[in-house]
Amino acid sequence: MTRTVDLNADMGESFGPWVMGNDAALLDVVTSANIACGLHAGDWDTMAETMKRAVANGVGLGAHPGFPDLQGFGRRRMHMPAASLANLVRYQVAAAEGMARAAGGTLRHLKLHGAMANMASEDEAMARACYEAALSVAPDLIVMVLAGTAQEKAARALGCPIAHEIFADRAYNDDATLVDRSQPGAVIHDPDLAGQRMVEMIREGAIITASDTRIETRIDTICLHGDTAEAVDIARTVRQTLKDSGITLRRFHDTPG
Amino acid sequence: MTRTVDLNADMGESFGPWVMGNDAALLDVVTSANIACGLHAGDWDTMAETMKRAVANGVGLGAHPGFPDLQGFGRRRMHMPAASLANLVRYQVAAAEGMARAAGGTLRHLKLHGAMANMASEDEAMARACYEAALSVAPDLIVMVLAGTAQEKAARALGCPIAHEIFADRAYNDDATLVDRSQPGAVIHDPDLAGQRMVEMIREGAIITASDTRIETRIDTICLHGDTAEAVDIARTVRQTLKDSGITLRRFHDTPG
Amino acid sequence: MTRTVDLNADMGESFGPWVMGNDAALLDVVTSANIACGLHAGDWDTMAETMKRAVANGVGLGAHPGFPDLQGFGRRRMHMPAASLANLVRYQVAAAEGMARAAGGTLRHLKLHGAMANMASEDEAMARACYEAALSVAPDLIVMVLAGTAQEKAARALGCPIAHEIFADRAYNDDATLVDRSQPGAVIHDPDLAGQRMVEMIREGAIITASDTRIETRIDTICLHGDTAEAVDIARTVRQTLKDSGITLRRFHDTPG
Amino acid sequence: MTRTVDLNADMGESFGPWVMGNDAALLDVVTSANIACGLHAGDWDTMAETMKRAVANGVGLGAHPGFPDLQGFGRRRMHMPAASLANLVRYQVAAAEGMARAAGGTLRHLKLHGAMANMASEDEAMARACYEAALSVAPDLIVMVLAGTAQEKAARALGCPIAHEIFADRAYNDDATLVDRSQPGAVIHDPDLAGQRMVEMIREGAIITASDTRIETRIDTICLHGDTAEAVDIARTVRQTLKDSGITLRRFHDTPG
Repeated sequence: MTRTVDLNADMGESFGPWVMGNDAALLDVVTSANIACGLHAGDWDTMAETMKRAVANGVGLGAHPGFPDLQGFGRRRMHMPAASLANLVRYQVAAAEGMARAAGGTLRHLKLHGAMANMASEDEAMARACYEAALSVAPDLIVMVLAGTAQEKAARALGCPIAHEIFADRAYNDDATLVDRSQPGAVIHDPDLAGQRMVEMIREGAIITASDTRIETRIDTICLHGDTAEAVDIARTVRQTLKDSGITLRRFHDTPG
Repeated sequence: MTRTVDLNADMGESFGPWVMGNDAALLDVVTSANIACGLHAGDWDTMAETMKRAVANGVGLGAHPGFPDLQGFGRRRMHMPAASLANLVRYQVAAAEGMARAAGGTLRHLKLHGAMANMASEDEAMARACYEAALSVAPDLIVMVLAGTAQEKAARALGCPIAHEIFADRAYNDDATLVDRSQPGAVIHDPDLAGQRMVEMIREGAIITASDTRIETRIDTICLHGDTAEAVDIARTVRQTLKDSGITLRRFHDTPG
Repeated sequence: MTRTVDLNADMGESFGPWVMGNDAALLDVVTSANIACGLHAGDWDTMAETMKRAVANGVGLGAHPGFPDLQGFGRRRMHMPAASLANLVRYQVAAAEGMARAAGGTLRHLKLHGAMANMASEDEAMARACYEAALSVAPDLIVMVLAGTAQEKAARALGCPIAHEIFADRAYNDDATLVDRSQPGAVIHDPDLAGQRMVEMIREGAIITASDTRIETRIDTICLHGDTAEAVDIARTVRQTLKDSGITLRRFHDTPG
Repeated sequence: MTRTVDLNADMGESFGPWVMGNDAALLDVVTSANIACGLHAGDWDTMAETMKRAVANGVGLGAHPGFPDLQGFGRRRMHMPAASLANLVRYQVAAAEGMARAAGGTLRHLKLHGAMANMASEDEAMARACYEAALSVAPDLIVMVLAGTAQEKAARALGCPIAHEIFADRAYNDDATLVDRSQPGAVIHDPDLAGQRMVEMIREGAIITASDTRIETRIDTICLHGDTAEAVDIARTVRQTLKDSGITLRRFHDTPG
């Protein structure tokens, strides 16, 4: 049986004169791009350029909305009524959806950013408000969720297509949450180790925790990073290790061509 | 022969806690709404609310993009490369287009705002860059232009549907430009006079200038304002006077039902 | 014995083309103005104009810093490290202090705005971070605090001059917190009642709660509002009632001239 | 006779998560830092950190205000009334002045940024509006001007202390303007050449143009850059070459200690 998996990364996080990440390098690694939508990062020029390149590389386009907090990069929790949160998501997804079409592509998926994602992984109602808002603009959107969190519950309740995500470079607790960054071994820096872990998890269809416990889950996509040279190195190695192990890299929910 | 005309006004120009204009009153007057897209005015909450109300009133939805200059309300000229200007317009039109669909409506038209509109009425290449960008997101968009300006030339060259606009409350020079606000009589404050002028211009199919010259032009829509009590009063009177004169008020380019 | 009290109100909360509040009316009522510093409201033009008028009216100038959240008007809680919060306050107080000097005045006091104020009234460490930051720019600043809250504790611990504030239009619980707005009687709409309550509280040197309990406290200033016609009416009546009762209205910490 | 000169560079141009330039490297090279003030670059955290380091290195602090255009990095021309421009400069200089004091330093100089600087070098009235506004906040400020431009005329007319600036890496026309970047030789990439040119110009007290003409001028400071590795290399070489030639590097207008 052939196994397949998608590789995703956040992209288009530059703003004005400020460059973030190595998008060019990542576009040769990933199959899906989560593109910032202008409010926590990624102005209109960055969005247009990132989408053009992603389309040229056959990389799937995703909206990556966040809080309207440029200085804090959308990493600070903000509290707002559900209706306002929904409008905030709608605005960003709409901008991304139309920009994607103008770039000759199609917006395929949604992934929440930063503090918005963290809050949504704890609060099902909030996750649902975000997802419903996104789907009101683009009804066929695939919602990317952190396996085992309130994000997953909310998406399931909505009955929309879901892509389940695991992290290449983070250790897991036995309840499927991530080991806190303050703990030793929480972040994986060895590219080969990261690659081997991913191969194992995909073969076993399970998250393998720090205590070597298996948590069975569907795995559609692996989250990679491109903000440092080390991260790009890990991304490339994970990709190569997966391929060497006979795992097919393909955009989630794509039918084999 | 039955004559018809559209009435348009800028709307959704509130931002956060700050209210601008009397949108509720205007929605009973106009047939088309030019809705700010978040960068010079009109955040996501304002956009969503304005679109919901406009759809409920059967008022046509238009994107009203401007420069990214909230403090200056998009009235300050900014100079940017054509490609960046195009991305700026694309972003705003995309946001408006998707928000319109989410509100159960359809984005029908485009009208440029403030300094962007002024610059585009002088510079055909700039107008074209804006219009092409908007059409790349929403190919069926009707472009609203100031009759006789570079805006009109650019839209004609693109071959897109056009709505020709005249002002209810401004006097015209013999070259179809507006009489400068510093001149006596430049702005019309008398609602009845404004209404009578509009009836005449529409009957004659011509702009009637301050010197009583006729400049033949197609007239699809009349621009009204709602930012002051006087403006709302003029808007209502123009509407009533047109109706009393047997002129049908209908969204431009709508076929009679 | 002569009793004196200060009257304060938030001002300069307009932004760009958007007007908020009736500053002109309030400047004839209050003795101290809390002026927004550009991040939740109050751009540079608004600040300059508000300060010029306040100086002309002999009204004391205060910095009113808030979170960098224009769309949310600084009313949404944001979470940031203490060092960053301190820099945020420093920036705003510095801008206000220099603008005040340029307007021919002196920055006399500090009052936190919105969610920043609410969080500081619950969290002494946060309040202290804000106050220390403000004092690092303007060491003689008088810190306005909500009597009985963590704000007061933080300011006492710093040993800086303090102005204790009560509200003219809000009912109090027996622990000196405000009755929640959802409760009946939480907000006082009757100008005469508001005026009488203030006279009583100042005469007795105590907050008088909804259950008619006295909580002894120093009262330096009364918070008024100017965002609605009703609010301005209450403000004027409170002022007149205090004067009619022989209470002197004077900027807090001013020595009688 | 001992010759002295100051070396200046723009700094603190990071914003939120986005890093720009190599400030740490430049702080070992320059004697004066032009620090962005939050509107085109340089948020409160960046400002505080940059000032702390500059103070620790004995580098002079300068305000570097620009247009409120983060996405365009203050490089796009914006047109606003003189009074509004003055308030814009006042706000930024005030923020910088107070932050400088809070960091244990003193704001010594002003240098306009980007499009604001370009417009001011062509338009004396505009330059004067900016300089007067800055001096209204910090009366002892030294105004850094491009020798031979409207900036210099405006500063002279105001009678404020002036620092005359030349560029290390740009060729000059015979009217003291910079050779356009589109021309061959406009930008100097050879560190040794840049260093030798600076030594010559300072020894001769003149700008030496591309045609080898001398334009006599006072030279107080040399503008260096730190945004690329090449720029840092040029900056270091210019510094070393000046020192090796017996020219003293010292903050402009400092009396020898």
